Amino acid sequence: MSRFLTDRYKVLKPYTPGEQPQDKKYVKLNTNESPYPPSKTAMRLAAEELERLKLYPDPDCTRLTRELAVTYGVSEDELIVTNGSDEVLNFAFMAFCDERTPAVFPDITYGFYRVFADLNGVPYREIPLLSDFSVDREGMKAERGVLFIANPNAPTGIALSASEIEDIVACNRERVVVVDEAYVDFGAESAVPLTKKYDNLLVTMTFSKSRSMAGARLGFGIGCRDLISDLVRIKYSTNPYNVNRMTAAAGVGALLDADYFCENCRQIIETREWTARELAALGFDLTPTRANFLFAKSDKIGGEELYLALRERGVLVRHFSGERIKEYNRITVGSMAEMQIFIDKTKEILEVNR
Amino acid sequence: MSRFLTDRYKVLKPYTPGEQPQDKKYVKLNTNESPYPPSKTAMRLAAEELERLKLYPDPDCTRLTRELAVTYGVSEDELIVTNGSDEVLNFAFMAFCDERTPAVFPDITYGFYRVFADLNGVPYREIPLLSDFSVDREGMKAERGVLFIANPNAPTGIALSASEIEDIVACNRERVVVVDEAYVDFGAESAVPLTKKYDNLLVTMTFSKSRSMAGARLGFGIGCRDLISDLVRIKYSTNPYNVNRMTAAAGVGALLDADYFCENCRQIIETREWTARELAALGFDLTPTRANFLFAKSDKIGGEELYLALRERGVLVRHFSGERIKEYNRITVGSMAEMQIFIDKTKEILEVNR
Repeated sequence: MSRFLTDRYKVLKPYTPGEQPQDKKYVKLNTNESPYPPSKTAMRLAAEELERLKLYPDPDCTRLTRELAVTYGVSEDELIVTNGSDEVLNFAFMAFCDERTPAVFPDITYGFYRVFADLNGVPYREIPLLSDFSVDREGMKAERGVLFIANPNAPTGIALSASEIEDIVACNRERVVVVDEAYVDFGAESAVPLTKKYDNLLVTMTFSKSRSMAGARLGFGIGCRDLISDLVRIKYSTNPYNVNRMTAAAGVGALLDADYFCENCRQIIETREWTARELAALGFDLTPTRANFLFAKSDKIGGEELYLALRERGVLVRHFSGERIKEYNRITVGSMAEMQIFIDKTKEILEVNR
Repeated sequence: MSRFLTDRYKVLKPYTPGEQPQDKKYVKLNTNESPYPPSKTAMRLAAEELERLKLYPDPDCTRLTRELAVTYGVSEDELIVTNGSDEVLNFAFMAFCDERTPAVFPDITYGFYRVFADLNGVPYREIPLLSDFSVDREGMKAERGVLFIANPNAPTGIALSASEIEDIVACNRERVVVVDEAYVDFGAESAVPLTKKYDNLLVTMTFSKSRSMAGARLGFGIGCRDLISDLVRIKYSTNPYNVNRMTAAAGVGALLDADYFCENCRQIIETREWTARELAALGFDLTPTRANFLFAKSDKIGGEELYLALRERGVLVRHFSGERIKEYNRITVGSMAEMQIFIDKTKEILEVNR
């Protein structure tokens, strides 16, 4: 830290991304990436931009916005495109929260919400998940402030239904509800149709998971025109060229290749269910996940112990040290071959531990 | 604007990027892009990342940072890589300015400084350029707060020497000086070597201009370890994956292809000098630019009038309406062929106006 850093940021605790170790090749099930490459159309359109890189990108991402509008059944002015969905989430903290309008989110959820609140000097309240790790809807509704709900939630994978989301959004139309649908494509219901009815609802999504583009950085937000115009105002005061040419083009390609997207989601769901059955057969407790990851604990081995033993055997999963979840691990759904290795190694570890 | 936007951002006046009209094909000399494509190595390395887009990028941009360190003769921890240099500039406003530490910059300079100050709720002072449009060094030195100096300055193109920069940095070591070197490669002196000596100096650069990568969004900052660690802390609290895989790889390629970079800079300087002579012969007043643009006015035609007449003839330059500079136009240095068209059309317009 330099002597010049302003007081405001001295206390920041930055977000810790999942580890990306370089020491050896792992079966990487720790950061919820897709096991499948991006669509060929995405790669082709991105490659076509290489010659045009000397020119600034279109700050409005006109073509991508048009394709998103078609895909999600909304108008172009109900959309904002960002450098990953983290950026649109940060813009939402900036636009809608302040000292008097706190952020509210579950105690166990995406770790960046707390960081964004701190970054923007916004007070926040964490509402404990219920004992089954589901979101305490009544608890959230009772709070004052902007609600941030990851749906499905991370790292539990548990989803609220669209009608449960609607109940929360409708109960107080004088506050914004942000529904972070990073994992929605793996079997949960999207709240996007509700944005037509509620002007206090913002839905955020990402190309990182279901569209295999974590390395391209592309996210977006959907909401009513006025909400979006607030976020656009902040974008144009922060980084109008936030999305580069290659990424915007890849996004268009990914949307055009809808069959590939659906097939990948279907395959991941199938692999998830297979893995869940295998883990259950080994005596694991699992949450009813609708995401591209599982959240599991065993009576036979501690969470951290299993994480370390898997790591030693070349399989990387994500372990969180929070008190309520420290016996669990979050396991990204990879390919069938990867999940077979994960199950084999887990069996091996449980054998040794017997 | 929605009823939810917080007071803080209600008054924001977003930055206006240069126009990117879609109505017809222009000779585009309005946004300081390079007339040359990115290096072949840059394109090849970016293309190689397409298959890997399913994986998150390396948040530390390890390989790119290593190449930058070699290229600029600094250590890796004296570098931060960002989504365009606008992002590192915004991080500097966040890290080093606050209500009590104003931002200070010339009245005529990069328009985004004012926007960043407003975005971050930071007061600012604009120090008028001297009558010859050079930076009022004594005026800047006398101010309290963080100094932002574009060097060469935009839209004037006038540069301070490294020793003039040093004089400003050295006069008060208890404040940060940010030197924005977006245009430094076209003939100005870089302040990077001074970062070894002064822990209150941050230099920012971009791949947008001299490395033909405006569409890829890549910038960086160089400063002492502690200054950089402040900016890194903010990056990890904002968007750790701010630079996508393709762009980071393209950056490595651009640095490896040093000959191509030098040749392009040389060519742009040569074309600039040719254009300057032609304009001078037509009676234009020109600033002594060291950037990839010219800044010129004519007694024979008003600034806006010339801008509109050129636009009508398919040549796009940038006109600013500020009182002191409204008779000028900023003309990006394109290829020789483009500049020939620009000169021809200008002659045509002056003929008609006679």
